[in-house]
Amino acid sequence: MLQYDEAKKIILKEASAVNPKIQALPLLKSLHRVLAEDVFSDSDLPCFTNSSMDGFAIKHSPRNSWEIVDEIPAGHFHSVALHDDKAVRIMTGGKLPEDADTVIPLEDVTETGNTISLLDSAKVKHGQFVRHVGEDLLKNRMAVEKNTYLESRHIALLAMCGKDMVNVYAPLKAGVLTTGDELVDIHEMPQDDKVRASNLYTILAALQHLNLDTVNLGILRDDKSVIKQAVQSALNSDIDLLITTGGVSVGKYDFLKEVFSELGVEIVFNKVNLKPGKPVVFGKYMNGATVKYIFGLPGNPVSSYATFKILVEPFIQSIYRQNEAAPVQAILKTDYKKSDKRRHFVRGLLTYENNTFTVAVQGLQSSNNLAGLAQSNCLFIVPEDDEIIKAGTGVLCIRI
Amino acid sequence: MLQYDEAKKIILKEASAVNPKIQALPLLKSLHRVLAEDVFSDSDLPCFTNSSMDGFAIKHSPRNSWEIVDEIPAGHFHSVALHDDKAVRIMTGGKLPEDADTVIPLEDVTETGNTISLLDSAKVKHGQFVRHVGEDLLKNRMAVEKNTYLESRHIALLAMCGKDMVNVYAPLKAGVLTTGDELVDIHEMPQDDKVRASNLYTILAALQHLNLDTVNLGILRDDKSVIKQAVQSALNSDIDLLITTGGVSVGKYDFLKEVFSELGVEIVFNKVNLKPGKPVVFGKYMNGATVKYIFGLPGNPVSSYATFKILVEPFIQSIYRQNEAAPVQAILKTDYKKSDKRRHFVRGLLTYENNTFTVAVQGLQSSNNLAGLAQSNCLFIVPEDDEIIKAGTGVLCIRI
Repeated sequence: MLQYDEAKKIILKEASAVNPKIQALPLLKSLHRVLAEDVFSDSDLPCFTNSSMDGFAIKHSPRNSWEIVDEIPAGHFHSVALHDDKAVRIMTGGKLPEDADTVIPLEDVTETGNTISLLDSAKVKHGQFVRHVGEDLLKNRMAVEKNTYLESRHIALLAMCGKDMVNVYAPLKAGVLTTGDELVDIHEMPQDDKVRASNLYTILAALQHLNLDTVNLGILRDDKSVIKQAVQSALNSDIDLLITTGGVSVGKYDFLKEVFSELGVEIVFNKVNLKPGKPVVFGKYMNGATVKYIFGLPGNPVSSYATFKILVEPFIQSIYRQNEAAPVQAILKTDYKKSDKRRHFVRGLLTYENNTFTVAVQGLQSSNNLAGLAQSNCLFIVPEDDEIIKAGTGVLCIRI
Repeated sequence: MLQYDEAKKIILKEASAVNPKIQALPLLKSLHRVLAEDVFSDSDLPCFTNSSMDGFAIKHSPRNSWEIVDEIPAGHFHSVALHDDKAVRIMTGGKLPEDADTVIPLEDVTETGNTISLLDSAKVKHGQFVRHVGEDLLKNRMAVEKNTYLESRHIALLAMCGKDMVNVYAPLKAGVLTTGDELVDIHEMPQDDKVRASNLYTILAALQHLNLDTVNLGILRDDKSVIKQAVQSALNSDIDLLITTGGVSVGKYDFLKEVFSELGVEIVFNKVNLKPGKPVVFGKYMNGATVKYIFGLPGNPVSSYATFKILVEPFIQSIYRQNEAAPVQAILKTDYKKSDKRRHFVRGLLTYENNTFTVAVQGLQSSNNLAGLAQSNCLFIVPEDDEIIKAGTGVLCIRI
C-alpha cells in the first residue's frame, strides 16, 4: 500500500504544477491572502531625513544653549539656514533643515523666551534622534516578497510603498458532496439508523479556513446513477477541486471509485497506509486543457477531517505556494500502542507549559468521535513501524 | 509613569465589564467566530450501536463459519433475529441487529455462496468493531463550550449536534482616524516632507484580523477644530471603539488629548512605560448609558502597530472572552541592550528548529521602520529593569 510520505510527495508535485490564477484587490481586502507579486519600495524609506523626537534640530557643536530661529511642523517643511548657535523647533517625523545633524528632545532643555538651555542631566550626542533617508529601505529594494501570507504588518509596509491595489492568488473553487443513504441534513433529528451529514459542513468550513470559494453539492443517496450524474456535472463546472466524502471503501454501496473511473478520472492513488482514513482517493480529470483535482475522502467524520488536514490542506497550501507549518515536538504524556503498520495521526491535546510542549491522547480514537476531535488541538504522528510509543518520548504534532 | 502590567490590568478589567452583543448565524458563517452559548448534544453520539467496518455482524461464539441471512445497508435498518450460526452483512456505520455484539471485517473471511468462513490468520474478539450508543458523547452533555473560538473541528461537532444556527458574539464596530499635516493617502506619491498614512491601513487590517467591523474615518489635518468635530461625531455614532493614531505626544500640534478632555472623555491613562509607543491614551466616553472606548495610539507607524498588538488586541480579545496566546520562550541569539527603564517590545524573528525556539533582533528598531516590522514575526519582551539581555538567555516572545 502507498505510504503516507509517498502520497504526500505525489500530491505536492501535482500542486506545484498548478499555476494559480491571480487577482488584483484593494489593499485592505488582501489581508490573509497570499501575495502573487514581488513588491518593491517606490521611494526611499524614510524618504527624507527626519527627527525621531519632538524637540530642536541643531548643527552639533559643544554648546549648551541655542536661539530658536524657526519652527518646522511635520508636513510644513521650508529651508532654514542653521548656524552653530541656532536651533529649529521640530516635531517627530519632521524633515531636518539641510544643515542640521542632531536633535535635542524637548524634555532635555528649558525654554526661556527664544532660548533653549540644555539641562545639566542631559547630553547631546552627535547625530542623535535623526532618522536618515533610506535607512529602513532604499528605493526599488524588495519590500514584501511574492508568496508572502499577508498579515497586518505586511499591509503596513505595502501601504507605505503605495500599494493601494495588490496582486494576490485568486481563490480556488471547490465543490463538496457527501454520499450515503444514512445521511440527513443537520437541521433534521436523525431517526432509526440515520446520521447527520456533518462531513459536508466540516469540509466546507475547512475549505473556507483556507480562503477557497466553495460550492455545496449536497447529500447524495447511495445510487450509482445519481452519484455519477452529480460528479460528472461537477467536473464539467468551473470548480478546480472536487471533494467527496464516503463511498470510497470496499463496501457494496461504495460507488465513487467506479464512478470516477467510468467518467475518465485518472486515479492517482486510492488507498494510503494511514489511520484514520486509509481509503482515500486522489485523482485528476482533464476537462479540455484544464485539470480538475479530486479527493475522495472516507465517510467516517474523523477520517474525512484528518485526511483533509494531512492531504488536502497541504495540496491547497502548496498551490498557494505556502509551506506547511513545521510540526511541534512534544513529550507524550501516556503510552500509545498500535498493532498495525499504518502511520497513525492521533488526536491529541498539545499544551505549552514551563517552556515545554506536552501532548496527551485526547479521548476515544474511534473514527466517528467528533466530540474527541473537537476537544483536540493537534494530530500527533506515530510512524508506521512503531508499535508502542512510551510516555516521555518526543512525538511530532500537527496543530489543527 | 504607569507600568505596562498595570495598564494591561486596567484594560482587561474594563473589557471584562463589557457585555458583548450576540448574533445568530448559519453554522458555516460561524467559522472563526466566538461561540456565545454552551452547546449540548441533542442525542447520544453515536445515536445507535453500529459497525466500524464493512463486514458481518454476528453474535459472538467460538465458531468459524456463519450463514449470511440478511444485509443491513447503512440507512436501511430492519430487525433481524440472529442465531449463533447466522451473520448479517453490514456496512461501516450500519446499525447492528439487536442480538449482534461483534463484527467480522470483510477482509477476514472468505465467502462461498451464503456462507462465510473465517480465514486461518484471523481472530474474532468478542465485541470487536462495534461502536456503542453514546460512547462519544451522551445526550444533553456539553458538546462545545461558550467562548470557544470556532475552528472547522468545532463546526464538525456542532453540525453533528444539529446546530444549523449558532449564537456567536457580534462584531464590535471600530472607527479609525489618523492625524497629521504630513500625511497623504497611500495612492499618492509623497512630495517634500509628506508621508503616506500607512497607520490607517495597518490598524484597519489589524481590526479586520480580529473580525471587527471597521469604519475608515480618514486622515485629519493638525487642526484642533477639525479633529474635535471628527472625534465628536465618531463618539456619537454607533461605534464601540475609536482608535486614533498620532497627535497624542507632547508636541505643539498634538491636539488629541485636549480634544478628548474637552469632549468629556475620561482619560484612564495617557502614557505607559513601554517602548515603542509610550504616549498611548486609553479613555472612555459615556454616550447615554453606552460606553465608547478610545485608544489614542502614537503616530510612529511601528509604535501604533505595537501598541495595538500589546494593548488594543488584548482589550478586544478580552471582550470576546478570549485568552491571549501564551508567549513562547525563545533563546535570544545576540545581546540586546537598552539604557532606559521602559519595557521594550523588540521586533524579532522567531525560529523553531531542532525542537528549540530561538529569536533574533530583526533590523533597525526605529519606530518608523515598517520594513523591519514586516520581516519580524514576534515582539520579544525586555523587562523594565533589565539593561542588557545576553545572547543565550531566554526571552518571552509574542507572535505577531
